[in-house]
Amino acid sequence: MSILNIPLIIQDTAATEGDMGMLWMLISGILVFFMQAGFFLVESGMTDSKNAVNIAMKNFLDIAVGSLAFWFIGYSLMYGGDTGGGFFHWGGFTFSQGAADLFFQTVFAATAATIVSGAIAGRTKYTTYAIFSILLTAFIYPIAGGWEWNGGWLNNTDGIMPAEFIDFAGSSIVHSVGGWAALVAAWMVGPRIGKFLNGKPIEMHGHNQMYATLGVFILWLGWFGFNGGSQLAWGGDDATAASQVVLVTNLAAAAGALSALLFTWIKNGKPNLSMTLNGALAGLVSITAGCGNMTEGGAVLAGLLGGILVVLSIGFVEKTLKIDDAVGAISVHGVAGAWGTLVIGLWGVDGDAGIGIFNGGGAAQLGAQAIGVLAYAVWAIGLSFIFLFIMKKTVGLRVTEAEEIAGLDWTEHGSIAYPGKRQREIEE
Amino acid sequence: MSILNIPLIIQDTAATEGDMGMLWMLISGILVFFMQAGFFLVESGMTDSKNAVNIAMKNFLDIAVGSLAFWFIGYSLMYGGDTGGGFFHWGGFTFSQGAADLFFQTVFAATAATIVSGAIAGRTKYTTYAIFSILLTAFIYPIAGGWEWNGGWLNNTDGIMPAEFIDFAGSSIVHSVGGWAALVAAWMVGPRIGKFLNGKPIEMHGHNQMYATLGVFILWLGWFGFNGGSQLAWGGDDATAASQVVLVTNLAAAAGALSALLFTWIKNGKPNLSMTLNGALAGLVSITAGCGNMTEGGAVLAGLLGGILVVLSIGFVEKTLKIDDAVGAISVHGVAGAWGTLVIGLWGVDGDAGIGIFNGGGAAQLGAQAIGVLAYAVWAIGLSFIFLFIMKKTVGLRVTEAEEIAGLDWTEHGSIAYPGKRQREIEE
Amino acid sequence: MSILNIPLIIQDTAATEGDMGMLWMLISGILVFFMQAGFFLVESGMTDSKNAVNIAMKNFLDIAVGSLAFWFIGYSLMYGGDTGGGFFHWGGFTFSQGAADLFFQTVFAATAATIVSGAIAGRTKYTTYAIFSILLTAFIYPIAGGWEWNGGWLNNTDGIMPAEFIDFAGSSIVHSVGGWAALVAAWMVGPRIGKFLNGKPIEMHGHNQMYATLGVFILWLGWFGFNGGSQLAWGGDDATAASQVVLVTNLAAAAGALSALLFTWIKNGKPNLSMTLNGALAGLVSITAGCGNMTEGGAVLAGLLGGILVVLSIGFVEKTLKIDDAVGAISVHGVAGAWGTLVIGLWGVDGDAGIGIFNGGGAAQLGAQAIGVLAYAVWAIGLSFIFLFIMKKTVGLRVTEAEEIAGLDWTEHGSIAYPGKRQREIEE
Repeated sequence: MSILNIPLIIQDTAATEGDMGMLWMLISGILVFFMQAGFFLVESGMTDSKNAVNIAMKNFLDIAVGSLAFWFIGYSLMYGGDTGGGFFHWGGFTFSQGAADLFFQTVFAATAATIVSGAIAGRTKYTTYAIFSILLTAFIYPIAGGWEWNGGWLNNTDGIMPAEFIDFAGSSIVHSVGGWAALVAAWMVGPRIGKFLNGKPIEMHGHNQMYATLGVFILWLGWFGFNGGSQLAWGGDDATAASQVVLVTNLAAAAGALSALLFTWIKNGKPNLSMTLNGALAGLVSITAGCGNMTEGGAVLAGLLGGILVVLSIGFVEKTLKIDDAVGAISVHGVAGAWGTLVIGLWGVDGDAGIGIFNGGGAAQLGAQAIGVLAYAVWAIGLSFIFLFIMKKTVGLRVTEAEEIAGLDWTEHGSIAYPGKRQREIEE
Repeated sequence: MSILNIPLIIQDTAATEGDMGMLWMLISGILVFFMQAGFFLVESGMTDSKNAVNIAMKNFLDIAVGSLAFWFIGYSLMYGGDTGGGFFHWGGFTFSQGAADLFFQTVFAATAATIVSGAIAGRTKYTTYAIFSILLTAFIYPIAGGWEWNGGWLNNTDGIMPAEFIDFAGSSIVHSVGGWAALVAAWMVGPRIGKFLNGKPIEMHGHNQMYATLGVFILWLGWFGFNGGSQLAWGGDDATAASQVVLVTNLAAAAGALSALLFTWIKNGKPNLSMTLNGALAGLVSITAGCGNMTEGGAVLAGLLGGILVVLSIGFVEKTLKIDDAVGAISVHGVAGAWGTLVIGLWGVDGDAGIGIFNGGGAAQLGAQAIGVLAYAVWAIGLSFIFLFIMKKTVGLRVTEAEEIAGLDWTEHGSIAYPGKRQREIEE
Repeated sequence: MSILNIPLIIQDTAATEGDMGMLWMLISGILVFFMQAGFFLVESGMTDSKNAVNIAMKNFLDIAVGSLAFWFIGYSLMYGGDTGGGFFHWGGFTFSQGAADLFFQTVFAATAATIVSGAIAGRTKYTTYAIFSILLTAFIYPIAGGWEWNGGWLNNTDGIMPAEFIDFAGSSIVHSVGGWAALVAAWMVGPRIGKFLNGKPIEMHGHNQMYATLGVFILWLGWFGFNGGSQLAWGGDDATAASQVVLVTNLAAAAGALSALLFTWIKNGKPNLSMTLNGALAGLVSITAGCGNMTEGGAVLAGLLGGILVVLSIGFVEKTLKIDDAVGAISVHGVAGAWGTLVIGLWGVDGDAGIGIFNGGGAAQLGAQAIGVLAYAVWAIGLSFIFLFIMKKTVGLRVTEAEEIAGLDWTEHGSIAYPGKRQREIEE
């Protein structure tokens, strides 16, 4: 006790809040890690059983190689010191700003890689995917991530930006980068055999909608950490802000699921499960950039439109672009990611002030958002094209026709997903 | 630094504890959200594969429409100001008392709705379920919830109550309300074709006990948030109290699983999985009201008896009431919910003092618990009957016989759970 | 306000950190609980569908009986007062040192029991497993656990130890105890019919690699609580230490998955899923003892070698020992557990100081680690042998040949995992 008869061991708020912030980031990171299981279930459930082991193996690559590559080099390229006018950062190999942050950022990086694997399921060489996964996690994603989340050129108005670009948890930085990479990859790898008949897309059913449903629940769950943890802090205003982020994330997901459900009901006469699943995911992606800058009503509206947009976009990619995206990843992550980024410029808020063109904020924010969307699209499409083009000319992108028909599980991994039923048939 | 050479930045306990409480509620809410995945797996696993997509779609309705309806109106009806003698509350549309609380209460509301869907699986119109899910989440559940959790007529002794009703996390408020609604719905919709032969129940097997098992593990997991989060606070006494809640929740679940396992072993000669699963859930429901008012031994006993009760009740509902409850929801949530509420009046404690008739607490608490059980039963049964009766006379409750035989997945959603195997057969 | 114009309500750091520590332990315990679902999925997925219900029932036994037995007696035998020179502890029945700690330790105990069930899948009597599960949770595990985690003979240098034994989260105490018990059990129960043909092991495929994959993701997730929660505290240095534990846990898991993937790729020409899964688990077990005493690079190396070791060990157990371990539990938990314990003596650190023989720490720590590994092996093997030998001579270990061929689901539980498909065939 002190001479004043009060305990001398007192505590400053910052230290406690730092501890609580670390706890929230760690728990959030653990939730984001679990999204790998969600992606695995969605992607394998929505595609053929003969390629399910291959999808599992891709997911393990993403998290295993991704964790190691991002720890060794990616985090440094993203969060190191500015080495090139806000475009490049570097802090040395195995650079770190604390274990909780490094862990949280690592599971984010692994997410970006995983988005690609679903789109190109069923016909891509495993070696090729492995290399591309490394490139994405170690270079494409982190370099561009630093533009915004490490105070780079998008995050200030020193250069061309009319306002600071806002992408709270990564509608553009994570999801659209993954989605645009998926677009390029799906286009360059080409469609699965039988996907197009005389130029018209044929529906290729998945093998287990129960997996896909469970996967979406797991992704929705993990997203609370993805968005909420991006507050990067807890305590005082940060506690209420992060709670609000989780609340609007749930509302937007609900709205996306509902609008896709209703839209397919009206359009086709029956409410469709796989579109409802994609609608929920689109709702989540639609609020990922703006979850710190959206009213509850604004979040609901963003999600509602995101859910409809994804249904339309999936049709557009198939019918107009004639690209075979096996799970709708381009639309869910790329298109809804762009939408979620732009919507801040439409009806986003900053505290009580409107920053969108529809709520009196003028056009500066929408301009900034559009520049960001464009920058990430150009970067992700450009680098993906270059890397995949080189691989096409060297290792090759695609398995042979015979391998594709037999299924990648057997030809690439010597195994099948449900051995009890069919192993003997195949072996005999 | 101050003149006293101690830092001036000091912190009052209340602020820190408020931040920690918010963190615990948010994490708990995230766990409760995940229970939707658990319900989906239990319900689809315990029923036929031809209705599995329909169950997934019901679950998405519950969480999607439920989240939006509860945000827009339900929370206000539950936690708004008293507008009718402790029976009705209202705070305006999109009323909120903070994002963490609103999120936590939203996922609770979605749980109540989900309980119904399993009981009436396999023969109910999707439109009808959708309407009923909205009514339950937006009106039936929140109005009655306010009676207790918003200081309403059950929560004080100003009126007829001999003691304050205790329902810590909702054995009655959530589970029995859901369970009684399921009872009315299952009775009014009628049994599945083939369930009764000459008045005797025929066992209709589920399609995947692995899903059901995983689902129960997920529900058990989520229940730690359901019960523990209902402390609504963390820090000091709340931290130890919430930890104790989680501990006794686990003990009661373990006891329920074990007693159902042993009871079926003795009764039928073999330990039965589906009854063990229901026993675990019954153990959880049995401790949900009393998890803040039960010794560890008392919790074990409540769970043990809950696990036996659910096995007997499932038989009673089928054989005596001749109601077809496809997953045992009436017994797990309704009957065990009533049991879990009443047991506080038998051997509940308040701190060190006994409040039950068996530990010297007199009969007042048991009386209060009985009034609460009755009130929620009358309310849930009454309103469910009225709403479902109106729907029966208008949109109709049940699909046609042909649709039921074909399966709701195909007739209501144009899709099936495992397309790889059977899609072509159906389409041809 | 005080006379000094600063608030009198101030807070000592210890109280806040105590509250935060309790929160972290509770959340970690919830994550560890979920590992039961992971074990269930891995074990059922990697074995035949005719024994999947039996595995679910074993898992429910582990968590149900385990929770009750550990609460009633096990925790006391582990954390009670020293009653026998650091070898035995006792604190009376239902002893507790706080709900959060009791819950956390309970789910650990249930983990140890579960490890055994996979190894002896498909031929062991359910009654026998039930008894053994109780013995393991109530006696074998807790008595030996006290040697280290309750300041017993391994945890100080008063006796024969050249240094304090280090096993942060239980590579030896939990995993190798479970693994060695599994070794004895698998050996004494004998191989499944058809496992060995003329002394050569035949590959017996599991029935669902998707379950196994999901299970490994869930185990990996739960392990963040298993290792991170073993810090038993949060706040200040504990917060950064626990975060670092989670980070290196993820790195080691990633490294284990990757090395097993590459090793099978090189060895067999194709990257193998089930070995990648086991590699990830081995990586996790490899860092469980040393997660508080390992650099990031050291953790990666421990995991890399653990992933290769498990592949070699699985071959050795099958081909050389001719023991049928249905899921590789002996190698994943026993062998990698020993490896993870020993590696601290090779390149472990204590803060900045090296304590391994390869980083200037001398041989004392390696000696201590070796004594610990040996002590837990002798104890687990010895007691398992005694208990199982008694059971062999009384209740018997193994089902009849006819029962094994028919499958334990039907003969032990009167039920099957996928009733839709086969129930009628069996019943007819």
